[in-house]
Amino acid sequence: MKTLYMGVEKGSVAPYVLFSGDPFRVERIKEYLDNPVSLGFRREFNSYTGTYKGVPITVSSTGMGAPTAAIAMEEMYEAGMKVAVRMGTVMALRDELLGKFLIPIGAIRREKTSETYVEQGYPAVPDFSLVEIYNETVKDFGSEYQNGITCTMDGFYSQMHDSGFSREFGRDLSPIFDELKRIKVSGIDMESSCLLTLGQLMGVKTCILTMTTVLENLKKVLLGEEREKAEDLLCKVALEGIYRYQRKEDNNHGI
Amino acid sequence: MKTLYMGVEKGSVAPYVLFSGDPFRVERIKEYLDNPVSLGFRREFNSYTGTYKGVPITVSSTGMGAPTAAIAMEEMYEAGMKVAVRMGTVMALRDELLGKFLIPIGAIRREKTSETYVEQGYPAVPDFSLVEIYNETVKDFGSEYQNGITCTMDGFYSQMHDSGFSREFGRDLSPIFDELKRIKVSGIDMESSCLLTLGQLMGVKTCILTMTTVLENLKKVLLGEEREKAEDLLCKVALEGIYRYQRKEDNNHGI
Amino acid sequence: MKTLYMGVEKGSVAPYVLFSGDPFRVERIKEYLDNPVSLGFRREFNSYTGTYKGVPITVSSTGMGAPTAAIAMEEMYEAGMKVAVRMGTVMALRDELLGKFLIPIGAIRREKTSETYVEQGYPAVPDFSLVEIYNETVKDFGSEYQNGITCTMDGFYSQMHDSGFSREFGRDLSPIFDELKRIKVSGIDMESSCLLTLGQLMGVKTCILTMTTVLENLKKVLLGEEREKAEDLLCKVALEGIYRYQRKEDNNHGI
Amino acid sequence: MKTLYMGVEKGSVAPYVLFSGDPFRVERIKEYLDNPVSLGFRREFNSYTGTYKGVPITVSSTGMGAPTAAIAMEEMYEAGMKVAVRMGTVMALRDELLGKFLIPIGAIRREKTSETYVEQGYPAVPDFSLVEIYNETVKDFGSEYQNGITCTMDGFYSQMHDSGFSREFGRDLSPIFDELKRIKVSGIDMESSCLLTLGQLMGVKTCILTMTTVLENLKKVLLGEEREKAEDLLCKVALEGIYRYQRKEDNNHGI
Amino acid sequence: MKTLYMGVEKGSVAPYVLFSGDPFRVERIKEYLDNPVSLGFRREFNSYTGTYKGVPITVSSTGMGAPTAAIAMEEMYEAGMKVAVRMGTVMALRDELLGKFLIPIGAIRREKTSETYVEQGYPAVPDFSLVEIYNETVKDFGSEYQNGITCTMDGFYSQMHDSGFSREFGRDLSPIFDELKRIKVSGIDMESSCLLTLGQLMGVKTCILTMTTVLENLKKVLLGEEREKAEDLLCKVALEGIYRYQRKEDNNHGI
Amino acid sequence: MKTLYMGVEKGSVAPYVLFSGDPFRVERIKEYLDNPVSLGFRREFNSYTGTYKGVPITVSSTGMGAPTAAIAMEEMYEAGMKVAVRMGTVMALRDELLGKFLIPIGAIRREKTSETYVEQGYPAVPDFSLVEIYNETVKDFGSEYQNGITCTMDGFYSQMHDSGFSREFGRDLSPIFDELKRIKVSGIDMESSCLLTLGQLMGVKTCILTMTTVLENLKKVLLGEEREKAEDLLCKVALEGIYRYQRKEDNNHGI
Repeated sequence: MKTLYMGVEKGSVAPYVLFSGDPFRVERIKEYLDNPVSLGFRREFNSYTGTYKGVPITVSSTGMGAPTAAIAMEEMYEAGMKVAVRMGTVMALRDELLGKFLIPIGAIRREKTSETYVEQGYPAVPDFSLVEIYNETVKDFGSEYQNGITCTMDGFYSQMHDSGFSREFGRDLSPIFDELKRIKVSGIDMESSCLLTLGQLMGVKTCILTMTTVLENLKKVLLGEEREKAEDLLCKVALEGIYRYQRKEDNNHGI
Repeated sequence: MKTLYMGVEKGSVAPYVLFSGDPFRVERIKEYLDNPVSLGFRREFNSYTGTYKGVPITVSSTGMGAPTAAIAMEEMYEAGMKVAVRMGTVMALRDELLGKFLIPIGAIRREKTSETYVEQGYPAVPDFSLVEIYNETVKDFGSEYQNGITCTMDGFYSQMHDSGFSREFGRDLSPIFDELKRIKVSGIDMESSCLLTLGQLMGVKTCILTMTTVLENLKKVLLGEEREKAEDLLCKVALEGIYRYQRKEDNNHGI
Repeated sequence: MKTLYMGVEKGSVAPYVLFSGDPFRVERIKEYLDNPVSLGFRREFNSYTGTYKGVPITVSSTGMGAPTAAIAMEEMYEAGMKVAVRMGTVMALRDELLGKFLIPIGAIRREKTSETYVEQGYPAVPDFSLVEIYNETVKDFGSEYQNGITCTMDGFYSQMHDSGFSREFGRDLSPIFDELKRIKVSGIDMESSCLLTLGQLMGVKTCILTMTTVLENLKKVLLGEEREKAEDLLCKVALEGIYRYQRKEDNNHGI
Repeated sequence: MKTLYMGVEKGSVAPYVLFSGDPFRVERIKEYLDNPVSLGFRREFNSYTGTYKGVPITVSSTGMGAPTAAIAMEEMYEAGMKVAVRMGTVMALRDELLGKFLIPIGAIRREKTSETYVEQGYPAVPDFSLVEIYNETVKDFGSEYQNGITCTMDGFYSQMHDSGFSREFGRDLSPIFDELKRIKVSGIDMESSCLLTLGQLMGVKTCILTMTTVLENLKKVLLGEEREKAEDLLCKVALEGIYRYQRKEDNNHGI
Repeated sequence: MKTLYMGVEKGSVAPYVLFSGDPFRVERIKEYLDNPVSLGFRREFNSYTGTYKGVPITVSSTGMGAPTAAIAMEEMYEAGMKVAVRMGTVMALRDELLGKFLIPIGAIRREKTSETYVEQGYPAVPDFSLVEIYNETVKDFGSEYQNGITCTMDGFYSQMHDSGFSREFGRDLSPIFDELKRIKVSGIDMESSCLLTLGQLMGVKTCILTMTTVLENLKKVLLGEEREKAEDLLCKVALEGIYRYQRKEDNNHGI
Repeated sequence: MKTLYMGVEKGSVAPYVLFSGDPFRVERIKEYLDNPVSLGFRREFNSYTGTYKGVPITVSSTGMGAPTAAIAMEEMYEAGMKVAVRMGTVMALRDELLGKFLIPIGAIRREKTSETYVEQGYPAVPDFSLVEIYNETVKDFGSEYQNGITCTMDGFYSQMHDSGFSREFGRDLSPIFDELKRIKVSGIDMESSCLLTLGQLMGVKTCILTMTTVLENLKKVLLGEEREKAEDLLCKVALEGIYRYQRKEDNNHGI
C-alpha cells in the first residue's frame, strides 16, 4: 500500500535513501543515478529510485522543517529504508568551514517534532560507521570535514534570520548566534536533530552530510562556478559514501 | 527585493492572501481567479496573483507544518499582505461536521514554532470580522458551519496518525484523541495555531476556513463527486469571503 | 442541594449569569433587575436572581483572582448556568480605549487555575455569538468597542502594579508592560482567561464585557459623573446583550 | 495613603495581623478583641484593629485563593505589618488530627502566585519562633498539635473536591489524595504556601495555625457544640500566641 | 545483608546518624565517640559507630553532591537510621554569620536528585524538634545561631564558584549571588535540600547544623586556631544535640 | 595554584586523563603506569600521574554522580587536561553486551548538573576520533564493542535500583527500564552525559569506555576470574587507546 503523503511503498524504495530538503534539488541529484524512476512528486515530497555503481538508491525530499522531515522518515521506513543520509548546504558559524564539509557528530534539539517521540535529553546522534565512511570519503575526494555540532530550530525568521517583522517586533537575533558560538555550534538548520533522533529510535542508520556554502550573516557566500563545483562534490560524496557503506556493511565488527 | 524562499515582493503580492497547505492544490484554486500570474514555485511554495470580482488576491501554499507556515506568513507580510485566510480540508473529531465548515474560534498551540514568537498561553485566535463574514458567507451558500476549537500539532505520525513505526514503538495514539474530544476539540491540523498567533502579533487579519472531508479514523470520507463539490464550495466561499471583507472594511465600527 | 461556597442550587439560578468581581458591586447591578431575590452573600460571593425585560438573570460575584472565579463557574454550572458574562471595568494598555468597551476575542493564560483543567496551549476564547451580539449592542448604544487580547495574571503586586515591597525587592514591572504592548495586548485582569477556558470546556457560552475606566499607570482615569455614566452604560449593555442573546438563540445557524 | 483594595494605612494597622480566609469570620474573631475599630469591608477584605491583653492586633481576611492572599500580605506590609498569623480550619488527610491543631513546618507550593515572586524550589516555611510559641500555647491550652506539611493548590474543584463538572469531565481526584498521603502531607488549603513564601521574602514573621474540623471526604466532621468549642479554642490560641510572641520578642537569642 | 555502596546493615548502624560531606573528616569526628568501630570506607562513604554519653551514634560521609547524599540516606535508612543530622562548615552570604551557626529552617531545591522523589514545590524542611534542640544547645554552648534559608545546587563551578573555564565560557556568577541575597538566602551548599526532602518523605527526623567558616568570595575566612575551635565546637554541639534529643524524645507532646 | 578540591595544578597533571568513578579503583589502575606519583587523595578524588609506553597519563576519580564529575572535569581542565577518558564497568540493558565493551556515541541527559552549563537539548556526544580509536583498539585486543546510547541519571535508588524505601514509598522502577529499552538505550550510569557535555563545551576531547560486567536486575554477573580478566582488559584497552590517540593526533585530517 502506498504511503499517505509520499505515495511510496515497499519494493519501489531502496534500503539506501538520500534526502534533500528542497524537492526541486532532487531533480538535479537524480542526474547522478543510473535509470532513475520517479516515485511521484506530491506536496513537498519528490522521489526517485535508481542505482549508483550498481547499488540501488532512492533520492527524496523532506521539505523544510522537522514536521515534514519526520513524515519523510516515517513513510520511507514504512517502505523499507535502512539507511538515511541527509545531504544539503549549510550556513556555518565558523569561517574556516566555507567550502568544506560539516558532518555533525550531534545536533541540538531545539525543534519540537522529535520531542513528540522522545524526551529532550535524548542525544540526536548519527550512526558511527556512516560518519566514519563519510569522513574518509571526503578526504579521498581531496576535501576537508569537521565533526561538529549542528543546532536545529523551528523558527526560521524568529531564531535564524532577521525579517521585516522581527525588526518591527523589536527582536534582535544576534544574542542567539553569540550563544551558539559560545557553546561551540558549527552550523544551523531546521531538520537534522529530528532526522537523527528518529533514525536512532527506528534503528535506521542515519547521518547528515552538509557542505558549507554560506557563512553567518552572508559574510561570505560561495557563488557561480565555485558553488556549482561544491554542490557537485556534495552529490558525489553523498552517493560514493552510500556505495562504500554497502560494501563494508558485512565486515562490521560492532555488535 | 524578492524574499528568500518564496521569491515574492511588494507589488506582486495582493493585500489579500489565500493559503493552501499543498502547493499543487494552488494550481486548482488559481482557476477561480481572473488573470492569474505565477509568482514562482520554489520548494513547497507555489504562488499566483489574480483577481476575483475585481479584488486582487494572491493564492499561495505554506507546505505542511508550522515552520514553513511561519515562513509563508513572514515573507507574505514582507510583501504587503494585510489579510490571510488559510483554506483547506480537515479531519473532524465530531461526526456531525462531515461535509460542513469548521471555522475555528481558537486553536490549541501544540506546535512549537509559534512559541518561538510568544509564550504558549497567548491565544491563537482569528480576526473577529473575518469569522463573522465567513459564517455569513457559508450560510448564504446554503451550507453550515461550526466555530469550534482546532488542535495544531508538530508530529503527524507521533500525535495524529498511526504508522508502522508507531506500532513497533509501542505507541497508542487513541488516548490523544480521547482527550481531544474530552476538551471539546473539533478538528486537528499542523498549521492553524501558528498562522493565527502570527497574524495576531503582526496585525494581519487572519482566519481559518476548513471543510470537513474526513472523520476521525477514516470512519467516513467524502469521495468522488461529493468531494469535488465540497472542494469547489470551499474555493468559492473562500474567495467570496475575501470579496465581502474588502467591501465591508470601510464600515467597520470596531476600534 | 446548595453548593458549598455560594450556597446556590438548581431552580434559584437563571440560565443567564452576569458576573462581577466585587461582591459589593453586585448590589448596584441588581438595581437594574426586576424583583431581585438574594441567593446569599457568603465569603466573596454575593448573588441575586431577578428579571430584565422578562428574561431571568442571576447576577453574582467571583471575588478577585482565578481560583475563586473557577469556584463561581463550577457552582453556577452545578446550579444550571448556560451563559456566563463577566462584566467589569478594565485598565487598558492603549490610550484610545478610554471610555470604550474592550470585548476580548482571546486571553493570555498567565494564571494557573485554568491549567489545573487543561494544558496551557488551549485557547481562552469567548463564545462567538455572544461577542457578535455585544459588538452590535455597544454600537446600538452609541459607543465603541475593540475585540482585542486581554492578559490574565495571578500576581497583582508582582506582575500588574508596583508596591512598597516590589520596590524594596528590586522589581521593576515596566518590562512586563512593554512586552504586553509589543505582543498587542489591550487590557489586563485576574480572572478572564480562567472564565473563558472553563466556559469552553463546560459548554457554557462565555464572554467578557469590559469598560475601560483607567489607562496604564493611571495616566488618565474616568472620574465623577463621567465614570458613573460609563458604569451605567456597562450595566445596561451587559443586560441588554443577554436579552438579545436569549431572543436570537433559536435562530442560530451554527452547528 | 490608603492601600488600593483593603483601604488600610500606616497607623491604623497593628504590627501583629491575624488573617482569616472568610471576611465574615472576621466579625466573630473581632469579638475577642478589646475596642475593635473597623478599617473597612471592601471586596473580600474585612479588617478591624483592637487590642488583646493590651497588645494591638489587626484581624483581617484574605479571601480564598493565593492571588488575594498575596494582595493582603502586600497591603498589610505597606501598612506596617511585622508578624502575620493565618488562622483557619483545615481539612486533614490524617484521621488522628481531627479536633487538633496542624501548625505546618512547610507547605507544597502548587499555587502559582508565589511563583511570580520566587522560583518554585524556594521553601514555603514559617518563622521558627512563631511555631515554637504556638506549639507551646496549644499544649498549655490542653490540646495537641502536629508540625506537618500542608499542600496549597489553585484549583478547588479540579484538585481538591469533586464537582458535577469534574464528573462529567471524567476526572477522578482520588489519585491526587493518594499521592498527597504517600508524600506525607497532613492538610490541604488554597493560601498557606503563598503567605509563607511572601512572609519569608518580606521579612514578615509568618505562621499558619489551623484547627482540623473535617477529615478527607467528609469522613468525619466536627459539628454543633464540638465545632464551636474548637473554633473558640482556635481564636484563643491564635491571640494568646501573638501576645506571648510580643512579650518574648526582646529575649530572642537568634541572629 | 550489607548495602550496595556503603556496606552497612541493620545492627551495625545506630538510630542516630551524623553525616559529614568529606569522608576524611569522619576520621576526626569519630575521635569524639567512645569505642568507634569502622563500618568500612568504600568510595566516598566512610562510617563508624560508637557512643556519646552512652548514646549509640553512627558517623558517616555523604560525599559531595545530592546524588551520593541520597544514596547515603537510602542505605542508612535501610540499616535502621531514625534521625539524621548533617554537620558541616558553610559559606555564608551574610557577614554577621561568621563563626556562628546556621541551622536552616528550609532549603531551596536547585538540585535535581530530590526531584526524582517528589515535585519541586515540596518544602525541604527540617524536623522541628531537632531544630529546637540545636538552637538551645548552641545557646547553651555560648554561641549564636540563625534559622535561615540555605540554597542547594548541583553545579559547583557553574553556580557557586568561578573557574578558569567559567571565565573562558563568559559566565558571570555574581547575578546568582545577588539574587540569592535578594531572596534572603543565608548559605549555599550541595546536599542539604536533598537530605531534608528525603528525611521528610522517609519519616527520618533530619536537620542541618552548619558552622560558618567562610564568607562569600572568601571576603573573610576563619583560619588557624580560630577555625579549629569552631570545628571543635561544631562537633561537640552536633553530638550533644543528639544526646539531648534522645533523652527528650519520650516527652514529645506533638502528634 | 592548586585547585580547591582535588589539589592538582598545571605541571602535575598530564594532558591525558583517565577517570574512574571509585577513588579506590584508581589504586589498581595506577599499577599499569610506570612511575606513578600521587597527586593526593582528598574527599572522593584520588589522583596519580605516571607514564604508559612513554606517554604521560593522569589517572583520577570523579566520585559518584554528575556534581563531582563536573568538579573533576573543571579542576583537571584548570590543570591542563586536553583529553578525558572515563573508564568503568556498566550495567547493560541488552544481554548480548555481557563481557563486551559499550563505547557510547551519545548519552541521555537526565542529570541536572550539565543543564547548569547548557540547555538540555544539547547533545552529550564523545569526540569522534577517540571513539574510532577505541573501537579499533577493542577489536585489536580480540574483544567486541557497541556504539550505543547510555542514560545518565541523578537518582540511584529512585531511578536505577529498588531500595527498601522505594518499596515502602510504593515506587516501581520497572517502567523506567521498559522505556529505556524501548528507546534503544544500552546502559545506565550517573556521570557520562555530564562528562561528555562538559568535554564538548570545554574543547576537551572526551570519551566513555565501559565494560559490561552485569546485566539488568543482576540477571547475570561476571564473577571471579572472569571479572578480573574483564577489568584487566578494560585497563589495558583504556591506556592503549590513549597511547594510540597520542601517536595519531598529528595526522588528523579533520578541521
